Amino acid sequence: LPGVDRDALRGALSGIVGEGRVSTREADLRTYARDMWPRLLLAVREGAVAEHPPDAVVWPETAEEVAAIVRLARSRHVPVVPYGAGSGVCGGAMPLHGGITVDLKRMDRILDIDDRDLVVEAECGINGERLERALAAKGLTLGHFPSSIYCSTLGGWLAARSGGQMSTRYGKIEDMVLGVTAVTGRGDILTTGRHGRVQAGPDWTQLLVGSEGTLAVLTSGRLRVRRAPAARHFRGFSFARIPAGLEAIRRVLQRGLRPAVIRLYDEFDSWMALRPHDKAKEAHASGALPGLAPPASKKGLLRGLIGGALDRPRALNALVELGAQKLLRPGCLLIVGVEGAEPRARVEADVVFGELERAGGKDLGEGPGKDWFARRYSVSYNMSKVFESGAFVDTMEVASTWERLMDLYEGVRAALQRHAFVMAHFSHAYSEGCSIYFTFAGHAPTRHTAEAKYDALWRDGMLAATRAGGTISHHHGVGLLKGPYMAEEHRESMALLHALKQTLDPDGIMNPGKLGMSTWTAT
Amino acid sequence: LPGVDRDALRGALSGIVGEGRVSTREADLRTYARDMWPRLLLAVREGAVAEHPPDAVVWPETAEEVAAIVRLARSRHVPVVPYGAGSGVCGGAMPLHGGITVDLKRMDRILDIDDRDLVVEAECGINGERLERALAAKGLTLGHFPSSIYCSTLGGWLAARSGGQMSTRYGKIEDMVLGVTAVTGRGDILTTGRHGRVQAGPDWTQLLVGSEGTLAVLTSGRLRVRRAPAARHFRGFSFARIPAGLEAIRRVLQRGLRPAVIRLYDEFDSWMALRPHDKAKEAHASGALPGLAPPASKKGLLRGLIGGALDRPRALNALVELGAQKLLRPGCLLIVGVEGAEPRARVEADVVFGELERAGGKDLGEGPGKDWFARRYSVSYNMSKVFESGAFVDTMEVASTWERLMDLYEGVRAALQRHAFVMAHFSHAYSEGCSIYFTFAGHAPTRHTAEAKYDALWRDGMLAATRAGGTISHHHGVGLLKGPYMAEEHRESMALLHALKQTLDPDGIMNPGKLGMSTWTAT
Repeated sequence: LPGVDRDALRGALSGIVGEGRVSTREADLRTYARDMWPRLLLAVREGAVAEHPPDAVVWPETAEEVAAIVRLARSRHVPVVPYGAGSGVCGGAMPLHGGITVDLKRMDRILDIDDRDLVVEAECGINGERLERALAAKGLTLGHFPSSIYCSTLGGWLAARSGGQMSTRYGKIEDMVLGVTAVTGRGDILTTGRHGRVQAGPDWTQLLVGSEGTLAVLTSGRLRVRRAPAARHFRGFSFARIPAGLEAIRRVLQRGLRPAVIRLYDEFDSWMALRPHDKAKEAHASGALPGLAPPASKKGLLRGLIGGALDRPRALNALVELGAQKLLRPGCLLIVGVEGAEPRARVEADVVFGELERAGGKDLGEGPGKDWFARRYSVSYNMSKVFESGAFVDTMEVASTWERLMDLYEGVRAALQRHAFVMAHFSHAYSEGCSIYFTFAGHAPTRHTAEAKYDALWRDGMLAATRAGGTISHHHGVGLLKGPYMAEEHRESMALLHALKQTLDPDGIMNPGKLGMSTWTAT
Repeated sequence: LPGVDRDALRGALSGIVGEGRVSTREADLRTYARDMWPRLLLAVREGAVAEHPPDAVVWPETAEEVAAIVRLARSRHVPVVPYGAGSGVCGGAMPLHGGITVDLKRMDRILDIDDRDLVVEAECGINGERLERALAAKGLTLGHFPSSIYCSTLGGWLAARSGGQMSTRYGKIEDMVLGVTAVTGRGDILTTGRHGRVQAGPDWTQLLVGSEGTLAVLTSGRLRVRRAPAARHFRGFSFARIPAGLEAIRRVLQRGLRPAVIRLYDEFDSWMALRPHDKAKEAHASGALPGLAPPASKKGLLRGLIGGALDRPRALNALVELGAQKLLRPGCLLIVGVEGAEPRARVEADVVFGELERAGGKDLGEGPGKDWFARRYSVSYNMSKVFESGAFVDTMEVASTWERLMDLYEGVRAALQRHAFVMAHFSHAYSEGCSIYFTFAGHAPTRHTAEAKYDALWRDGMLAATRAGGTISHHHGVGLLKGPYMAEEHRESMALLHALKQTLDPDGIMNPGKLGMSTWTAT
């Protein structure tokens, strides 16, 4: 931004946090110019200079410091972009209009683990795995296990309505949170839900949760925790077709059963999940498309083959579909895991497994479930390898009621298949519906053609999702990527979002351009 | 209001809904001048003329009619007061500044019972028991059983964050609702949560839920339902002291057990709950204080005795406490009921009952639980009899985390005991805390002294609750009664409420004076 004097900004920020916790160094600004939004990786791969760096990065240690930073930003009309671990996949932490990136990572204290009330209070910069480890040391669990757990923070989870792999039992982060402390775009500190979830009047916590930094910087949260489960029972089932598997999941959920995990893979995704894994290379290969992350020596050859195949996504999708049906015959794999204290976990597992079998599932034993559990975090750490191979890969998570779910699956899949190779699984089930997690891989010869394909793919996928009555996100958030589709999802309620923005952030400095709200006007 | 020309208003409203569904008749205006707020019954008992009648009552049949009514009210700057069944106990439906009372009772259609997604959609004027009956006919249940179920509506439940007797298993109404349709104070129709509970961005449903008509008129809601439970297991336990019983409940909840009902009565409330019941007179006497609703012939004598005793609340409380401890020795009664499908309900019941016994509870068999279940709705229909006897009775429901719960109990009880005879039970338990339901009876010789005592009692009780870190309401709402304490509960978030009010109701016509927001300015 031509208007921002970075040295002056650094000086002013130093006045708040001291010199050691502010940077305007080029290397830092470049690092904080992006998160894990795959579209940005297309540029990174080419070694392109980051187009949207912040003007300064600051590492506050208290909510009061954050408040002072926001007030400073207001007075200078400079954007504020909250930053956790930068693991977001929608560009939410990208400083589209520059400004001050507020990295919360030094606010990583666990303020209280109350094992009487079973409530944890922690600062928002805490790493997810570290929080869970601290709870585990006391025999507790938050029950929140996003695949990004090693590289995401509590603040990111809350800001983007994160969902963990065990959400069917434990809920999404929005179900666990009792209250938050946040610094609004006015520079005021606000604490919600002081009394726990129950209160009189409207609920402010659920306003700030999901607001992705556009209204406030979340600085700490209080969340329900549970006693760690004593027992865990896994099982795999195979269903001939997707609808039979979905029907089985629906019956389980609607009987009030709450397995920690229940996920159904479509044909190709099933084959991926069931293929033998080289234990030594597990962390390396799992989760990526087969061969997309080959040993370096074969890279050149495979790169050409893969690129060629991914350049013809319709043919590849059709071929794989045929192959999956005729040759692989994996059917659709369903993984289920029930956990808790005995004897109830055993009883619940027996009822769940029985229901799945009655619904037509073929029992595959506990192997597939245990394998899934062992490799459950692998996928998030292999994306960059796919990019190295010359392709791009991304995921799209949508949700709907049961009634619309197959239409949503088919509509979005057809839209994506025009551009990319697609597979999907169904996870995060509710009594009234379920989410779908599409993984897709595409290819184009240059950065700009790849970006164009990527944009077309998302546009078609999101429009198909909203047309089928699905959400635009289940747990990855909106960021910059899905902003254009917010109005389709929220419709007349967008006026509420704008009004709230006006109230909490009258100068529009908070993460401008995100959540589908108007872009920045430098004055 | 001097400014309102009722005939002109009736004419204009007739233009929207036709003449048959508008009234400005004195009898109607008087009827709609109050809800079941006990303070208002003090005036009713004296035959006083209602001080705050509406200027007109209207019975719309569609959201569009409601929108037209609100737009009319805006253009004439006349308040709009949504009205369900008038069962509220905080004055929320009282037209403090006159205006148009919008009775939703003709909007009582069940729009859809989707037994695939297990979702019901119904208009907000539907009577609670009728909704539950329609669901029961399909083998379903909402799981929402407030003691007012026969005389309250879906809209009232949503507006005031209602909690039913089985909330420990099924949640409060706010946990069941997926989305609502509402007419804002601008006269716009707004639908939230189109995709179910999961969505990207802030949650608007939880903004409108609990807003008590101050932002919008709720016109319909979509809610999760469940399959009706096949089995129900009740048990009573006795605990020597309250803290031991609370500790037992905490352990049950924190083990992840979810009995439909688990409630602990303090010493005197236990004696009330355990006393023998004359089956024939059950509906008549139950729930009221013993002797407060005697047969007519003895009324004069008892009236004097009761009045005399209640005029000396400290002495009465002390006497009863002594009596309860030394003579009645009921200990504290705990009622628990587990329900669901077998075999899980049986297993859960066994684990719950075992846990309660291990925590020191003495097993009283299933009798107390079954008795409670049989009489669970009685209390709401006996209040008026108490008033006939010359006394007044009311309830105060607050909540806190476990850590603060005994302080909350003792603080509020001490505050109330200065003015009234008090008993209490603990119900609606959560992993992190519980609510307390105080019942109190007072007496004063005249309406105005009774009102003064009533006001002092609430003031002292609410201040004690907030001082102890409790909420000002658990499930009765705020209305007019608890408005003065909203700022104590919401603190800096009150600015959010005002901003939201400004956005959704720029002219301030929606239920003015409620939820602690500024009163009406006639212009």
